[in-house]
Amino acid sequence: MNGAQSLLRTLVDCGVDACFMNPGTSEMHFVAALDSVPEMRGVLALFEGVATGAADGYARMADRPAAVLLHLGPGLGNGLANLHNARKGQVPVVNIVGDHATYHKQFDSQLESDIETVARNVSTFIRRSAKTEELAADAADAIAAAIGPPGQVATLILPADVSWSDGGVPVSSLPPRPGGTPPEDANVAAIAAVLRGDLPVGILVGGRACRAPALATLGAVAEASGAKLMSETFVARTERGAGVVAPERLAYLGEMAAAQLDGLAHLVLVDAKSPVSFFAYPGKPSDLVPDGCRVHTLAGPGDDVGAALDALAESVGVARGRRGALGAPGEPRGGVVRPDLPSGALTTQSAGAVIGALLPEGAIVSDEANTSGLFIAAATALAPPHDWLMLTGGAIGIGLPLALGAAVACPDRRVLALEADGSAMYTNQAWWTMAREGLDVTNVIFSNRSYAILNMELHRVGAEAEGPRAKAMLDLSRPDLDFVSLARGMGVPATRADTSEEFAEQLDRALNTPGPSVVEAVLASAF
Amino acid sequence: MNGAQSLLRTLVDCGVDACFMNPGTSEMHFVAALDSVPEMRGVLALFEGVATGAADGYARMADRPAAVLLHLGPGLGNGLANLHNARKGQVPVVNIVGDHATYHKQFDSQLESDIETVARNVSTFIRRSAKTEELAADAADAIAAAIGPPGQVATLILPADVSWSDGGVPVSSLPPRPGGTPPEDANVAAIAAVLRGDLPVGILVGGRACRAPALATLGAVAEASGAKLMSETFVARTERGAGVVAPERLAYLGEMAAAQLDGLAHLVLVDAKSPVSFFAYPGKPSDLVPDGCRVHTLAGPGDDVGAALDALAESVGVARGRRGALGAPGEPRGGVVRPDLPSGALTTQSAGAVIGALLPEGAIVSDEANTSGLFIAAATALAPPHDWLMLTGGAIGIGLPLALGAAVACPDRRVLALEADGSAMYTNQAWWTMAREGLDVTNVIFSNRSYAILNMELHRVGAEAEGPRAKAMLDLSRPDLDFVSLARGMGVPATRADTSEEFAEQLDRALNTPGPSVVEAVLASAF
Repeated sequence: MNGAQSLLRTLVDCGVDACFMNPGTSEMHFVAALDSVPEMRGVLALFEGVATGAADGYARMADRPAAVLLHLGPGLGNGLANLHNARKGQVPVVNIVGDHATYHKQFDSQLESDIETVARNVSTFIRRSAKTEELAADAADAIAAAIGPPGQVATLILPADVSWSDGGVPVSSLPPRPGGTPPEDANVAAIAAVLRGDLPVGILVGGRACRAPALATLGAVAEASGAKLMSETFVARTERGAGVVAPERLAYLGEMAAAQLDGLAHLVLVDAKSPVSFFAYPGKPSDLVPDGCRVHTLAGPGDDVGAALDALAESVGVARGRRGALGAPGEPRGGVVRPDLPSGALTTQSAGAVIGALLPEGAIVSDEANTSGLFIAAATALAPPHDWLMLTGGAIGIGLPLALGAAVACPDRRVLALEADGSAMYTNQAWWTMAREGLDVTNVIFSNRSYAILNMELHRVGAEAEGPRAKAMLDLSRPDLDFVSLARGMGVPATRADTSEEFAEQLDRALNTPGPSVVEAVLASAF
Repeated sequence: MNGAQSLLRTLVDCGVDACFMNPGTSEMHFVAALDSVPEMRGVLALFEGVATGAADGYARMADRPAAVLLHLGPGLGNGLANLHNARKGQVPVVNIVGDHATYHKQFDSQLESDIETVARNVSTFIRRSAKTEELAADAADAIAAAIGPPGQVATLILPADVSWSDGGVPVSSLPPRPGGTPPEDANVAAIAAVLRGDLPVGILVGGRACRAPALATLGAVAEASGAKLMSETFVARTERGAGVVAPERLAYLGEMAAAQLDGLAHLVLVDAKSPVSFFAYPGKPSDLVPDGCRVHTLAGPGDDVGAALDALAESVGVARGRRGALGAPGEPRGGVVRPDLPSGALTTQSAGAVIGALLPEGAIVSDEANTSGLFIAAATALAPPHDWLMLTGGAIGIGLPLALGAAVACPDRRVLALEADGSAMYTNQAWWTMAREGLDVTNVIFSNRSYAILNMELHRVGAEAEGPRAKAMLDLSRPDLDFVSLARGMGVPATRADTSEEFAEQLDRALNTPGPSVVEAVLASAF
């Protein structure tokens, strides 16, 4: 058994059975090993950023990591932006980067570069496997590190000769792992005391606290204590819809977020960071915690969130949320409220209403609609239960890969990618893989033909004297992008909608047709 | 004058007047400053790898660097692969990476990451500008470092507040710079002695030694001494065609390159690396220098190649090459030999003949045809003089951006991008910018619908037992990519050729039509 075969066998036996890849020569033995380990699903991407974003989407929905296979430093570079997003979302990814044979590196050939230094931007676990005999054990360590908690991007650098040499010794399972650091009674009691007190308290949730059972617990805590339940602006995965407790989402704009937090005397973090503004703006604060507000951490990235929530529920005296909160698909349920289908001009508002009216039960939404998505969250708030995936690290170009990975993880569910036109142009090679794999992904592209958010930011950062040459850098017309042509070029059927009626008709059809499709929603104005 | 304005003014005054950019919020003041420094040409790219590859192509043809403007660590990540290629080609690039405001970094917001660590993969000059007053001087240092020699990627990290604050002090010019380390007489004399001796000598050229005057000198040296004149496999820019001395190109395959070098007792390097195989292969040598062959360096990356060549010519007793070797476009010249236009099935061989028959005088060829380009070099060897740009770092996905940048640098010349289908899918967003800027770039996509080189490499690395699951990872059909649709989706007119006649007719039209176009050449077989 060569190294590559032992690696694939170990990945599969340790629960990693999907690999999103864009391999090159140094990874050929890994590729060849796919035939001797048929339980591993190899998914080819035409660009590395698709592979890394797909691994992120897969892990968010499967609750276990996928692997990615990249080709040396440049391949890692191309995959880096979406690994950054995974890092910020604490999503586990087993990031395998092929390298030259150990003895070849000294010759500094064309593709030689310092892989470790690039990986350090996204990984705290970085290991260069040095021996075929130890490769599988290195992989098992990488998987365990990726899972965490906290979830992370674990990078395993795989020299070609370590991969191709004989002597691989597969590892059949991971050691049992804790679910994170258990809560300390004194901390829980202190937070419970704050919640029982008279001063205004906010609870800010993120990460693992945005699943339905956790939200149910926190909803009960908030109700019993009068606390305000809020969520971070960008969350890896939120369970939401009718019957699911819905925290108020902090706004992207710091001024608005500050208003949401205004007046709080205490802020309790549950797998969330203390709130800060996304960017700095001249004369505006970066730290959004109100003056005098005390911040408490119930559970952080390395902690056992479930145990902390159970302890809090007990201490406050409310029932803990159950997994059943999301229920089984297909069951009748109350509380669903959908907008009416709109008519006339297609705007961000009417597009949101169409999506709210049509979102299928159990859908997985990959949301990179940016400014075009402003009205979608409200329009879908009481739709049938669904999952919502967001851009966690601010590096645009993840929405389509995320949808791809989610669809591989959940073949029985419909995936809806909501994508801004500017962001779509980073990684739309994802469409080709969706077509190849026959994935049920409906892709909506919101064409406002500008980097609309930058037109807004240009003013917000105080660059007031902008002229035509500056504005040209934020404009996506000249020429207009034609996403119908782009999608067809990658084998995905596509249509274009210019009115609300057309959008509703096309989206309905796309959502009910097997396989991927693209609907280009041409918006009447940028906002 | 704010920092951004002083930066742009300094760039322009120090000879950097094109900036390929994909900016975000932290770069808005740089963008706004475009209107106060109108000499700076801002060129928008929809993806960072387009911007970095374009800066590379620009510098190769302009012989001075362009700037790129990227958005934080993830933007640098997306641009990294083509910066790697520039690094390996010793091409100067002024790499400006925006960052959060200095006081905002502590808050670890979504886009926070360690930019320096990523930059270290491609840059030896990395500076984070700390004060608005010093920003312009930092930029001047970055430009000087980028120019070299050797040319390099110089990274300037630009915090948003350093950019937006008042107090910028522009720098109006660079200090006079040497053209590199002058040659040592003893070294030149020793090499001249080797050339005068009786043992077989090879001269291997790369980098700056692949321009016509240098090649003319070396051609005379080789003729006088009986030495074998060869070039590296991958060269940033080669002047070639009728009337230009043509070194024999070392083959990509190590076994073939070894045969070309076999029997040499001495190898003289002129701005070239000692030859090594691109990848390691089990049981094959990485170092391609024959046993017992002595390697001499006439001029290396930091040296004054022109002075070294002049000294060698004098020492050997031949005339030095003159700049006139390439002549002025439009002058009648002898020695042009073109293939006849072929007919019938479109193959790599007939496609090469079509290109040889039609290549315009003064064309700039961006060659990322990979396996599909096997016959093009021979078919164009005696075409009218032209420039040839190659992939210098092995990171595929540079051909289209390189063509874009070359066209910005040389608006009066026709650019011909020869691009493999697999490679084209990394950065074809370059087409949108070509359309927007109205650039005269003719793009040929060779569709063989596979990663053909990997099918070859799979065997060469000894992974012999590959099965259908491995082969699927190298296959680009299912679904077929439609490059005509893709190009039209980005506003570039496109046609598809299935026969040699169609390819000749379409290429001829494309080469003689202003603006960009795409011709998809569907090859009858992978090789």
